[in-house]
Amino acid sequence: MNYLDFDKTGAYKKLSDLAAKGKTFDSGALLTAERVVSSIAPMAGGLSYSWAAKAADPALLSALQNLSEEQELIGKYNALLDGETMNTGEGRKVLHHLLRGQAGRRVSHEGKDIGSFYRLELDRFSAFAENVHNGNIRGSTGKRFTAAVQIGIGGSDLGPRALYLALEQWAAAEGRRRLRGAFISNVDPDDAAQTAASVPLDETLFILVSKSGTTQETLANELFVKEKLLKAGLDPSKHLVAVTSETSPLSHNPAYLDSFYIDDFIGGRYSSTSAAGGVILSLAFGPDTFKELLDGAGEADALALEPDILKNAALLDALIGVWERNFLNYPATAVLPYSQALSRFPAHLQQLDMESNGKRVNRNGQRINYATGPVVFGEPGTNGQHSFYQLLHQGASIVPLQFVGFTESQLREDISVENSTSQAKLNANLAAQIVAFAKGKTDSNRNKEFPGCRPSSLIYGKRLTPKALGALLAHFENKVMFQGFIWNLNSFDQEGVQLGKLLAKKVLSGDAGDDALKAYAKLLGV
Amino acid sequence: MNYLDFDKTGAYKKLSDLAAKGKTFDSGALLTAERVVSSIAPMAGGLSYSWAAKAADPALLSALQNLSEEQELIGKYNALLDGETMNTGEGRKVLHHLLRGQAGRRVSHEGKDIGSFYRLELDRFSAFAENVHNGNIRGSTGKRFTAAVQIGIGGSDLGPRALYLALEQWAAAEGRRRLRGAFISNVDPDDAAQTAASVPLDETLFILVSKSGTTQETLANELFVKEKLLKAGLDPSKHLVAVTSETSPLSHNPAYLDSFYIDDFIGGRYSSTSAAGGVILSLAFGPDTFKELLDGAGEADALALEPDILKNAALLDALIGVWERNFLNYPATAVLPYSQALSRFPAHLQQLDMESNGKRVNRNGQRINYATGPVVFGEPGTNGQHSFYQLLHQGASIVPLQFVGFTESQLREDISVENSTSQAKLNANLAAQIVAFAKGKTDSNRNKEFPGCRPSSLIYGKRLTPKALGALLAHFENKVMFQGFIWNLNSFDQEGVQLGKLLAKKVLSGDAGDDALKAYAKLLGV
Repeated sequence: MNYLDFDKTGAYKKLSDLAAKGKTFDSGALLTAERVVSSIAPMAGGLSYSWAAKAADPALLSALQNLSEEQELIGKYNALLDGETMNTGEGRKVLHHLLRGQAGRRVSHEGKDIGSFYRLELDRFSAFAENVHNGNIRGSTGKRFTAAVQIGIGGSDLGPRALYLALEQWAAAEGRRRLRGAFISNVDPDDAAQTAASVPLDETLFILVSKSGTTQETLANELFVKEKLLKAGLDPSKHLVAVTSETSPLSHNPAYLDSFYIDDFIGGRYSSTSAAGGVILSLAFGPDTFKELLDGAGEADALALEPDILKNAALLDALIGVWERNFLNYPATAVLPYSQALSRFPAHLQQLDMESNGKRVNRNGQRINYATGPVVFGEPGTNGQHSFYQLLHQGASIVPLQFVGFTESQLREDISVENSTSQAKLNANLAAQIVAFAKGKTDSNRNKEFPGCRPSSLIYGKRLTPKALGALLAHFENKVMFQGFIWNLNSFDQEGVQLGKLLAKKVLSGDAGDDALKAYAKLLGV
Repeated sequence: MNYLDFDKTGAYKKLSDLAAKGKTFDSGALLTAERVVSSIAPMAGGLSYSWAAKAADPALLSALQNLSEEQELIGKYNALLDGETMNTGEGRKVLHHLLRGQAGRRVSHEGKDIGSFYRLELDRFSAFAENVHNGNIRGSTGKRFTAAVQIGIGGSDLGPRALYLALEQWAAAEGRRRLRGAFISNVDPDDAAQTAASVPLDETLFILVSKSGTTQETLANELFVKEKLLKAGLDPSKHLVAVTSETSPLSHNPAYLDSFYIDDFIGGRYSSTSAAGGVILSLAFGPDTFKELLDGAGEADALALEPDILKNAALLDALIGVWERNFLNYPATAVLPYSQALSRFPAHLQQLDMESNGKRVNRNGQRINYATGPVVFGEPGTNGQHSFYQLLHQGASIVPLQFVGFTESQLREDISVENSTSQAKLNANLAAQIVAFAKGKTDSNRNKEFPGCRPSSLIYGKRLTPKALGALLAHFENKVMFQGFIWNLNSFDQEGVQLGKLLAKKVLSGDAGDDALKAYAKLLGV
């Protein structure tokens, strides 16, 4: 495989030549009904990717197809699936796809079949969840568990929390709610205190998630919760399970009711389909629900092997994103789900994307001189319309938009006002926004003028089911992976989070070293 | 008063000359303990604004002081306080400061003393809240109210919700919790269904907030809730109050238990200190709590009249932000509160800033050709460290950072692990991040190298009380106002949200007009 910096490719040169035209491209004029119907790439889980409102004409699409081939994007994805060391800095394989089938391939490491290990853990926590549901496993007073609270931070929090919220109402409508879920992440003691106070402790199972078993914030929150349990006369070891690696201090530890394992081949932000997300989702909604999510993700992973960019939504999304970032120079991207259930999904994508591709060295640790991952932000649907859409429509900068929408609501409780349901209003607004951003509006009053040509794509489906959610999750994981390949990055490490941790430890040890750091600590009462 | 486009000022030219030096400025080297201690501007409510880690040297500060004077920022603020028509596009005064004292000034409009009107409404909803608390006002079955649910969107949701969450734990610790609060905003029917199911309907008071009384999403959610109440055998008119304008169809309407009024001089995103925020905050935490918040905001408004930029935190913050946006070309800003209570404060600031200054025409409706408001995003404290901070530290783009931190937690429940409390860990991390961003770290492994020179400021105080929160809110309102003056914008309208609304109505009327719009509506099942 050929690992080239992006600006050393022929495709980079070709795209640079197209850029001047791209900047004046009238995507609004291009947007006909015919284009809307024909510019759709299939996704897994019953979803589709509509790119009609992107400023992409045949010349650009052809250049992007060439880029995909020149940077061997499918070849690199295959190498990753075959277990090559794609996390170069840390010398690790990257195996989150193996949690949901690895497109049928097996991966061994030092003689061990990793897929068997992952499946065993899935079976173990599925059985554990069933034992909790049927009352075989109970709290220390003999009461059944009614709540599950995850204690984790970063990837052990954002992805699992986003998925939990995405399915909570669906599960209620489908009769699949088992335990109520909640999350503690921030080391701010108010977070743990507030969440612990919101659940009946004698009926609550806490899930401690830390791959290393040494995450400062998570361990502090664990101890906070343990003290609460002790004060309530409960036995913490009957109210806690751990999700960690087998080499961590938490593993095989009698302090926990049970422990479920992940390994170094699953990065934090890619761990939602491992035990890090699976334990709480299986407890909350049943193991079958979690397995349906895995099915959707697995299907998406298989689809992402398609070399034709018009038939591979993750690949196309990645390529258009790079075009917008490097050649149209758009620094940020907004994720705008028209679905209340996806309220925290943008926060997960923010981590996934910014932590993976917010880099300035290539996979070999050499400085690169082109833009990489954008700033990612977003809020749900119509709420954003009444807020920051002003800048998106009429601001000085252009921000590409990723819309998500579903034909049906999750709870299927609705009301008709002025001849339309709320769901119809929601989706009418979504359709309207896409066209408003693309086509704009001229007006003799320039304050009421909309420039248009503000590109967006739309992921849509019938309903946000577990399978659709798994497909959505994997779509973005694979998109980010392909962008990392284009930029020649290692998308799987995060050295940028280390320095702050190190300095914080120095402050807490009483020897901050740096005088300015001491002065700041003093301002803050440390 | 002289209203000049920014690029026509002498200060613009001067700052352009400083820009080349600014881009290579080593803010890390500048950051000594002495600078940390001396670079602090006072704020109201016991807060302080620390700008030591901004790349600001005396030459820059002097140019910014000149800019403030040339663009008559204090003069324009005075004009606003004196009731001039500062919302030029809509021909309106801008009077949210008058909700908390207007720095002592009176404003009349068409012979009416507006301050008296605002004070009357404050008195009315304070008394209403007290009557709910003491049981004089009860639900239709005679039960006391225990929950208050706000139905609103945009400014009728984001600000009030952020403030509610900011004070919920403080109020619990101080014995000031009266009613539980909740919010319905999204027209996605799952939002209303989920929230309505989470409260005891017979003990719930719903607060409908819509200035115009015609907000489509809010009226749909109101009807959804009314049907729920009717189905539960309750009388909706005994469970609903309205916050609206006196000219709206909701005013003086027997469908509501009571109505509280705002007027056209209070923009949605500036309405948190009006009845739009005051009713729910007074119900939830008592009128005194809300009045303390107003005191903090009023103090901040008075401080913002100070012409010396080093003694006026809102002004200095605004000026440095413009320097970073227009001359260092940073397109986004992150708001990073190290306080779980401020979890939704960044979403409020996102609206406040992006909707106010995301514009490309000046206050007279003429096109301008310089950057205006940045993209604003953020998440609480240490959570972000385990997520998108990777890009902030090592990404290809520089994002200025606004940190917020407090010496004490709100609940004052804490635990010591390895000789430090969680609160100490939280603040050690905050101090460490500021220094890590400013100073960076060299390393022979370039993947472990941190470039530094990434500017931040810190707002800090002892504890997030109602007064501190009011000061924090007003700080950002005034910062955004000053930036609007610098850019010569009207920061108080939002024409950019109109086109989408219009097209959505066309879709729902069955005559979308545009064929592409029809095609999108069909994809989404409308």
